[in-house]
Amino acid sequence: MVRKLNIACAEKAHIPAIAAHKLIGPLETPRAELVAAFCPAEAESEVAWYTQHLAPFGVKLYNDYDEMLKHPKLQAVVVATVTTVHAEQAIKAIEADKHVLCEKPLSTSVDISVVDAANKRPHLKVMCGFSRRFDASYRDAWNRMDNGFIGRASVLRSQTCDKLDPSGFFVEYAQFSGGIFVDCNIHDIDLALWYFGQDSIVKSTYAVGITAVQPELRKYKDVDNGVGVVEFWGGQIAYFYSSRIMAAGQHDMTEIIGTEGKLTVNANPLGTLVEISEPTGVRREIPPHYYGRFAEAFVTEANEFTAACLDNSKLPFKLSGAVQAVKIGCALQESLNSGKKIEFDETGRRIEKAAL
Amino acid sequence: MVRKLNIACAEKAHIPAIAAHKLIGPLETPRAELVAAFCPAEAESEVAWYTQHLAPFGVKLYNDYDEMLKHPKLQAVVVATVTTVHAEQAIKAIEADKHVLCEKPLSTSVDISVVDAANKRPHLKVMCGFSRRFDASYRDAWNRMDNGFIGRASVLRSQTCDKLDPSGFFVEYAQFSGGIFVDCNIHDIDLALWYFGQDSIVKSTYAVGITAVQPELRKYKDVDNGVGVVEFWGGQIAYFYSSRIMAAGQHDMTEIIGTEGKLTVNANPLGTLVEISEPTGVRREIPPHYYGRFAEAFVTEANEFTAACLDNSKLPFKLSGAVQAVKIGCALQESLNSGKKIEFDETGRRIEKAAL
Amino acid sequence: MVRKLNIACAEKAHIPAIAAHKLIGPLETPRAELVAAFCPAEAESEVAWYTQHLAPFGVKLYNDYDEMLKHPKLQAVVVATVTTVHAEQAIKAIEADKHVLCEKPLSTSVDISVVDAANKRPHLKVMCGFSRRFDASYRDAWNRMDNGFIGRASVLRSQTCDKLDPSGFFVEYAQFSGGIFVDCNIHDIDLALWYFGQDSIVKSTYAVGITAVQPELRKYKDVDNGVGVVEFWGGQIAYFYSSRIMAAGQHDMTEIIGTEGKLTVNANPLGTLVEISEPTGVRREIPPHYYGRFAEAFVTEANEFTAACLDNSKLPFKLSGAVQAVKIGCALQESLNSGKKIEFDETGRRIEKAAL
Amino acid sequence: MVRKLNIACAEKAHIPAIAAHKLIGPLETPRAELVAAFCPAEAESEVAWYTQHLAPFGVKLYNDYDEMLKHPKLQAVVVATVTTVHAEQAIKAIEADKHVLCEKPLSTSVDISVVDAANKRPHLKVMCGFSRRFDASYRDAWNRMDNGFIGRASVLRSQTCDKLDPSGFFVEYAQFSGGIFVDCNIHDIDLALWYFGQDSIVKSTYAVGITAVQPELRKYKDVDNGVGVVEFWGGQIAYFYSSRIMAAGQHDMTEIIGTEGKLTVNANPLGTLVEISEPTGVRREIPPHYYGRFAEAFVTEANEFTAACLDNSKLPFKLSGAVQAVKIGCALQESLNSGKKIEFDETGRRIEKAAL
Repeated sequence: MVRKLNIACAEKAHIPAIAAHKLIGPLETPRAELVAAFCPAEAESEVAWYTQHLAPFGVKLYNDYDEMLKHPKLQAVVVATVTTVHAEQAIKAIEADKHVLCEKPLSTSVDISVVDAANKRPHLKVMCGFSRRFDASYRDAWNRMDNGFIGRASVLRSQTCDKLDPSGFFVEYAQFSGGIFVDCNIHDIDLALWYFGQDSIVKSTYAVGITAVQPELRKYKDVDNGVGVVEFWGGQIAYFYSSRIMAAGQHDMTEIIGTEGKLTVNANPLGTLVEISEPTGVRREIPPHYYGRFAEAFVTEANEFTAACLDNSKLPFKLSGAVQAVKIGCALQESLNSGKKIEFDETGRRIEKAAL
Repeated sequence: MVRKLNIACAEKAHIPAIAAHKLIGPLETPRAELVAAFCPAEAESEVAWYTQHLAPFGVKLYNDYDEMLKHPKLQAVVVATVTTVHAEQAIKAIEADKHVLCEKPLSTSVDISVVDAANKRPHLKVMCGFSRRFDASYRDAWNRMDNGFIGRASVLRSQTCDKLDPSGFFVEYAQFSGGIFVDCNIHDIDLALWYFGQDSIVKSTYAVGITAVQPELRKYKDVDNGVGVVEFWGGQIAYFYSSRIMAAGQHDMTEIIGTEGKLTVNANPLGTLVEISEPTGVRREIPPHYYGRFAEAFVTEANEFTAACLDNSKLPFKLSGAVQAVKIGCALQESLNSGKKIEFDETGRRIEKAAL
Repeated sequence: MVRKLNIACAEKAHIPAIAAHKLIGPLETPRAELVAAFCPAEAESEVAWYTQHLAPFGVKLYNDYDEMLKHPKLQAVVVATVTTVHAEQAIKAIEADKHVLCEKPLSTSVDISVVDAANKRPHLKVMCGFSRRFDASYRDAWNRMDNGFIGRASVLRSQTCDKLDPSGFFVEYAQFSGGIFVDCNIHDIDLALWYFGQDSIVKSTYAVGITAVQPELRKYKDVDNGVGVVEFWGGQIAYFYSSRIMAAGQHDMTEIIGTEGKLTVNANPLGTLVEISEPTGVRREIPPHYYGRFAEAFVTEANEFTAACLDNSKLPFKLSGAVQAVKIGCALQESLNSGKKIEFDETGRRIEKAAL
Repeated sequence: MVRKLNIACAEKAHIPAIAAHKLIGPLETPRAELVAAFCPAEAESEVAWYTQHLAPFGVKLYNDYDEMLKHPKLQAVVVATVTTVHAEQAIKAIEADKHVLCEKPLSTSVDISVVDAANKRPHLKVMCGFSRRFDASYRDAWNRMDNGFIGRASVLRSQTCDKLDPSGFFVEYAQFSGGIFVDCNIHDIDLALWYFGQDSIVKSTYAVGITAVQPELRKYKDVDNGVGVVEFWGGQIAYFYSSRIMAAGQHDMTEIIGTEGKLTVNANPLGTLVEISEPTGVRREIPPHYYGRFAEAFVTEANEFTAACLDNSKLPFKLSGAVQAVKIGCALQESLNSGKKIEFDETGRRIEKAAL
């Protein structure tokens, strides 16, 4: 008899519950069994979706997160709600003695409370869902680098660029997202920490941005195109680009430049392996959204998290790194809005400049 | 309670039982449960593999195929043995009232006995495992063509090219494979029948080949590089290339040329999305074998077959097409060896030339 | 004072005189001076073009080819008229003691008279204009092969595919072109002779074709899509594709498969280095015609021919190869129309089969 | 009789005089005639080169720039010496009433004296040699943008990355180059001014850099990898990367992101159109240096400059833009060294911050 992990999924109100379906569905993550799901009360269409797709499998629905945590069989929780409640919900789950897979970013401001809560219960698996860490291509690149293939990794360029959503959903979402550097580039920041080494200490951050198509973003102190530059005390540089206005589709890519070579991940985005020759030229379509690029990584993530919980094996990376990523993301977002470079000392502590 | 399909897997002696693992493993095909496995008696290492990997899951091992068919819970059989016994084993399974997923090709000579057997038991699902029919890229191309995107499909070029195996395994296997056009290009032939229409009637076949690296293949009337040309009565041409000597890895690709456009599948093979810049240039690695390219298609195939059996839904293509593919493959192989073009009349019946 | 080669250019009536302009223009081929040009009398628009573009440079116009050859300063002739008069005009020029650069193919049927004429005047430079021999990429591939990089070259695939010309000009031109294998694939045949070795002996030819968009081609015994297969006595195979119906643009490409590696030339055609991301995907435009791909090769060809004439240096390849190429092209065209394989003995002499 | 432009070329001492050969050679720029050349006295090997390659064509050699300007037939000067003397030599040539094509950058510090000198003699053609403005791909991209194809250009990313030169030549050159942002990214800055509009006003500059392989660069206040970010008052952002450590070869590329699409120039660098399949994967070589990528653009530049001088036609862009480019390049270089963001008011005048 195969033992399964009884898991719950907490979802955003306004987003189709892809996560519940993809991550914890019986097809994709066979060692996990979805027993409960949460979404905020007001979302009727969401409830209807759950009723149709999850109820038949015996999944219990909740609109009260605390009640959900009391589900008698529950062992683990996936927190995929809006970013502003990630930390609170993750801590509640930990305190209810559940394993936690928390969607990135851990929070919209620097906050070590989740790490503190997790440290108090070392028997629990608490992981931040940096999906790219589970992607076969990023792992391939990392292994090559780790084998010394490119010498010393020195410069990292990475971008997270969404296809333009004409509905402008991302404008409303900006009030909960923490801003483009926290919401999008958090992935790229995490990659810098992964490739440069988890103990890399940030030296400075600087960011600029524009609202090319959505000037209303300014009211949430956000932009639709951002460029950020980060220096590390180890002598490396990372620079990031995030955008909400890609015409062709999602384009997330990274290059790691070392003293003896360069590794590039997804320089040329592609959907299927089909190329179309037509009177206007040769064309390929590319994935329209993040899931189109990373669906398989999400499945790997769910399976590895499940395995770690069931087998009490080690998670692939530490939770504390997620706090470092938020720290850098928030500093970039602050720099974007203040127009000032932000500096840190060699211990990573922020250097406050005297006022003029 | 989810009902599962109880399935058995019959394997080649000398090949790691990837099929059993990949296709029917609990992770990949959750609605199927592997209850039995067969491999010929002499293969000790194979038995050891089964003992280690399958026994813990309660899979029963057999070295007698007939005995395996008597397994009390058995509902379906995957026939993945050497080609020369495909037909015989498929028929036995059908006669034992099991669903059958038979690896391509159905046989090494034109043989309608499997189709006949299947026709007698229409409640059974009998499918030939043309993996490319389940590949997302080939399906994408087909849908575009079906939507009229390239006008009338007129010329198809397709190749199945293996990475050079220095062990020369393919030489020994040649005596069981039916020859390179039956073993490799059978996929490409099936694609021609799919893209040009399942009812396409072959008009002529012609083939040439060489033994560039393995002259011993000649003793099995085979080659390591073959080029075949097929005309259809509908006015289309397909031309094929198969090779056992690719240096960089597996390269299977197809282009469909229509009167208004062209679709290309996998013109540029790739492994992960990583590109490596190094002093010798820019490089990417490509999959070393067929599974590296088509692993996901195999999983889809296994799941769709399982679903068809459990839900009594329609299979995605007819079994009779597999006989057409073998007919064309055998005619190419014969042309290769005789040096003569082989012709067929408008009903697809072979035209025998008077002797000189 | 730099000595220049005084040259004449004989042109087709109905094609813009690109050749005269590109090949012999003062900008591109500085050591050559165009002193005379010929085009058939009836082409008024052509004469107007010459009047505007060439007259100011002192180029004399002729509508009588023989008269042109009497131009007092003439040293060399570029024969770029319709294929059916290539041989006759080349011989006349040779007999008038002029160097000759004759556009491919040398003739529409196997004809050694140009070679014979040239042999009688060994002080003259007589070359067939196989433009790909002057292309930097083809030369790069050849050098790599020659350095043993891919082991023994064994299989060559090559195609010459034109963008669909909706005017259907190629239908009318088919009566003068010698057919698609002689007009288009002659390039690819020449490449096979170059890469496999100029002394390669043809063993067999076989071809099929269809008229996908222009059924009227049949009246000139031609097709708009052809596939040809050639065996050589040295144990190599070449297979060719030619098409008049490419949607996106000109796509001429070649791959040379050796026992240890493969070289591919222009697998992915491109125009400029610009890639366009737009809502329908990522797109690149490709050259609409042969000149777009090979303009630079034409210039190199003209300059190398000029240099050979002025400096009495060796031409890069022998004239006799051009006859071999026509021989193979004509045999493919004949096979296309007869439906029969054509065979040659080990000396390259055709084997005539007894009639049934 | 075709009139030619009599031109002189002033060269660096320590660099093979490619410029003289490529730009003004009789083969490439037929309307120009090189009549004089200058290089500093101490460079004996250089003089030898000139003696062998240029003397036979009647080119007169000088090691005194002022003497060279007195050459009786001289009409134009190409200034290709080290950057630190560009301005001085350009002004001298202008004052001697010569047309001037000055290599980029115009100077190593913001200096309008060349523009002033040129303005006093409006009959002269004075151009800064931004080679990418003459590149077919960059022009293609510009035309598409100008036709509204990508909406409003909003973000530009551009890089100039050299293949690692193990000799470390670039370290010594750093003392004359103005630094990596002035020497390398000056091209990218010029592209931003071209694509965003020549009248774009810089709002801020910020740069960071590291010495990944050559720590000695620090003594010349330079780096081997730099990242720069520029804001414009029009609401656009440009960000730049320059590097001296590319393993595979020269990689200069640009992407222009607009509100409705994106144009990418040379995302995937390539040398010839040859791709090599070998046991380690699929590989292409890329140009080892700037000339390998831009040779044709240099020829176009020389020809268009020559034509403008001879025909008194308009130059393709204004000289004053070159001063703007230097201004931005110097501000980036200063930011790199001070660690401070530099800001400009809406007229482009620098905002000096009060000291702390």
